[in-house]
Amino acid sequence: MAVNYTPVSQVLSVEGVRLSAVAAGIRYKDREDLLLIEIAEGSSVAGVFTQNRFCAAPVLLCREHLTRHTPRFLVINSGNANAGTGERGLASAREICQSLADLTGLSPEQILPFSTGVIGEQLPVAPFKDSFPSAIANLAQDNWSAAARAIMTTDTLPKAISKKLTLGGKEITLTGIAKGAGMIEPNMATMLAYVATDALIEQELLQSMLKRSADLSFNSITVDGDTSTNDALVLIATGKAGVLVKDGDIELFQQTLNELCHYLAQAIIRDAEGATKFVTLSVESAPDLETARAIAFTVARSPLVKTALFASDPNWGRILAAIGRSPVKRLDISKLSLWLGDTHLIQAGEPVETYTEQAGQLEMDKQEITIRIELNDGDAATAVWTSDLSHDYVTINAEYRS
Amino acid sequence: MAVNYTPVSQVLSVEGVRLSAVAAGIRYKDREDLLLIEIAEGSSVAGVFTQNRFCAAPVLLCREHLTRHTPRFLVINSGNANAGTGERGLASAREICQSLADLTGLSPEQILPFSTGVIGEQLPVAPFKDSFPSAIANLAQDNWSAAARAIMTTDTLPKAISKKLTLGGKEITLTGIAKGAGMIEPNMATMLAYVATDALIEQELLQSMLKRSADLSFNSITVDGDTSTNDALVLIATGKAGVLVKDGDIELFQQTLNELCHYLAQAIIRDAEGATKFVTLSVESAPDLETARAIAFTVARSPLVKTALFASDPNWGRILAAIGRSPVKRLDISKLSLWLGDTHLIQAGEPVETYTEQAGQLEMDKQEITIRIELNDGDAATAVWTSDLSHDYVTINAEYRS
Repeated sequence: MAVNYTPVSQVLSVEGVRLSAVAAGIRYKDREDLLLIEIAEGSSVAGVFTQNRFCAAPVLLCREHLTRHTPRFLVINSGNANAGTGERGLASAREICQSLADLTGLSPEQILPFSTGVIGEQLPVAPFKDSFPSAIANLAQDNWSAAARAIMTTDTLPKAISKKLTLGGKEITLTGIAKGAGMIEPNMATMLAYVATDALIEQELLQSMLKRSADLSFNSITVDGDTSTNDALVLIATGKAGVLVKDGDIELFQQTLNELCHYLAQAIIRDAEGATKFVTLSVESAPDLETARAIAFTVARSPLVKTALFASDPNWGRILAAIGRSPVKRLDISKLSLWLGDTHLIQAGEPVETYTEQAGQLEMDKQEITIRIELNDGDAATAVWTSDLSHDYVTINAEYRS
Repeated sequence: MAVNYTPVSQVLSVEGVRLSAVAAGIRYKDREDLLLIEIAEGSSVAGVFTQNRFCAAPVLLCREHLTRHTPRFLVINSGNANAGTGERGLASAREICQSLADLTGLSPEQILPFSTGVIGEQLPVAPFKDSFPSAIANLAQDNWSAAARAIMTTDTLPKAISKKLTLGGKEITLTGIAKGAGMIEPNMATMLAYVATDALIEQELLQSMLKRSADLSFNSITVDGDTSTNDALVLIATGKAGVLVKDGDIELFQQTLNELCHYLAQAIIRDAEGATKFVTLSVESAPDLETARAIAFTVARSPLVKTALFASDPNWGRILAAIGRSPVKRLDISKLSLWLGDTHLIQAGEPVETYTEQAGQLEMDKQEITIRIELNDGDAATAVWTSDLSHDYVTINAEYRS
C-alpha cells in the first residue's frame, strides 16, 4: 500500500558497526523484534530525541547515558514503547542495560535503550535477558536489512538506504534505517532511525550535522500531528575508513547525510498509515522560516485537506481555509498565490479565471501531489511532506494499540 | 447518528423577529436553503465572526455593515459559502443586499449576508432575487424551526432551543438556532448561530455578553481543528418585552444566554460529522486558562486519541502522548493526574496500580466520555467538547464538498 516506495535491494555494511536481530517474543510472535547494534570503540555517536514531555523511559535513560559515555551498544525493541510506565518502566530499562553490560563487560551507561510500540504497558525484561546471548553471538556487519525489519511496528515495508562518497581520496559509506508510520510529526514522532558511517567525525560536529539533517527531513514530515513519546535518531561515526571529516569536506558530507535522512523521512510518509497519496507542501517567499513552517504544517495537518486528498477532490477551498487559520503573525492574502502541481489556482488572493475543475482533477488524480503556496512577502521557504487521511488510517488506529 | 441528541419539540417565538425559509435552489434541490430574518426597528444586534484570514465575502460585508447601521435583515443561505470567490464574490454579496434593500425600502447596509456550504464556487445571485418576494411575503414569528432546518449543511438534525426567564416581574424569551457539523474549531468554525431575545439590552453590553457566552460554548468545541471561513454568531435583542437588562439582572441574563449557547454548541458536537461519541475534555488546576485550553485542545484534536475513542479502546497512552506534546510553557508531569470518567489512570505522573483494563473498557464503552486532566499546579480550569474520528467522518469529508 506504500505510495511509490520499494525497499532498496542493497544495504551496505559500515565497518565498525555490527547488528543482530532476534525474535525475542516481546509482543509479536514469530518475528524479529529485538535489535542489537554494536558500535566499535573509538566511534562518535550523536542523538536527537523526542520533545514530548511524556517521553518514554528509554529516552530518559538515553539522555542520561549519553552525557556520561560514548555508547557501545544500542538495544532496540519493537512492540512495546515502555512509555507511561512510570518508575517501574525506568527500572526495567535500567535492568535491560545492566543485563547486556554484564554479558559484554561494559558499563550499563555505555548502552542506550530504545523502544517503540504500544504505550502504557510494562515492558517485560525476561525476553531481553533470554535473547541477549544468542543476539550477541549473531552480531554481524551485514545485518542491516534484518535490522530494518526488526524495528517495524505498523510499517508495511522496511526502510533502509546506503550512500557512498569519496573524501580525501577514500571511499566512505553511510547507511541508515528507520521506522515509523503513524504518530508522525516534527520533533521526531514515533520514529526510530539509526545512521552509521565509517568516516571519522568529531562528536560536537557530528551532533550539529545530525540536527541540521533532522530539521530538513524527519522534522519536516507529519502524518497526524501526533508526536510520540519515543522518537530517536542516532548517528554513529566509526572512523574505520580512516578519513576525518573536516573543513571543505563538511559540506559534502552534510549534503549526503541530508539526502540519506531525506530518503528515510520520505519513505516513512510513503508508508504512512493508510496513505494513498504522497503530498509535498511547499511554502515559498515567506517573511521568515517560522511563518513558512506554520502555514505548511497547518495545511499538512488539516483533516479536511487530507480527506479531500484521499478523495482526489480538487477542493482548494479547504486549502485556503487552512492557510487562513494558520497561527502566524503576518499573512497578506492579497499577495498570495496557490498552485496545485502545475495548475495555478489563486493569484494575488483571487481565483485564477482560467482555472478549470478538470485541470484541478488531473492534478488530484496523481499519487504524488505538490501544493505550492507563494506568499510573495519575503525570502524564506520550506517544504513539508505528508500523507492523506483515508479509511485505512482510521481502521489501523482504531484496531492497533500504539 | 447524533449522540444523545433529539431536537426539542417546542421553539418559542421572539416578538420583534420574523423569519422565512424558502427553497431557492442555490445548491440543494427541493429543500429550504434560504433564510430571511427580519429584525424590528429599535433592536440591538451583536455579532462575533470567524478569525480565519481567508474569511468569506459575506463576513467582510457583515463587519462593514455592522459599523454603520443596526441591521434590519439577515439573509442566510446554505449550500455555497461564497468564500475564496474574490472580488466577484464580494460583488455578489453586495448585489444580494442591494436587491433585498430595494424590495424593503432599506439601505443595503441595514442588511447582513451569511453563507455556508462549499468554498470556492461563485454564489449565483439570481436565486436570491427570484426568491426574495415570496420570502418577504412569508415572514412570520413562528418560523424558527423551519429556519433551523434551512441553514443545515452536513448536519443530520436541526439545532434550536428556547429559554424563558423572569426579569423585573416580566417574562422574557431567548431563542437560538445553530448549524455546523464539520470544520468546527474555536473562533467559530463553519458554524452559524442566531439568537434572539425580546429583552432590551444596550448594544455595548450585548456585544460583551455575546463574546462571554461564545468563549464558554462555541469557542470551546472542536471536531477536526479546521476553523471555517464563514462562522458567525449573532445576538438580537428586540426589547419588545419591555424589560431593560441592567445591573443585577445582567448576571442572570448572561447565565441564561450561556446555557442556551452551551446547548447549541454541544448539539453541534453531538451531531458532528461521523460522531459516535460525545467527549468532554476537562483540564483542572492549571497554572492559567491559556495552558488549560492548549492542553484540552491538543488532546481533543489528536487523531490518535479520536480514533481510540471511536474504537472504544482505553488506550490512555495516546492521551498522555497528546498532553506531552501540548504547546505550553509549564507542564510538570510529576504532578499530573488523569481520569477517564470515574476511573483513575495516572496519579502524580505514575500509572495507578489499581487500574485495570476492564475498568478502562467500561468507561470507553460509554457514548459520553469525560477525560479529566488535573495538573495540580494552579487554579485555572476549562472544559472543551469534541467528537471521535470515525470512518463516517472520512466518508463524509471525502464525498462532500465543503
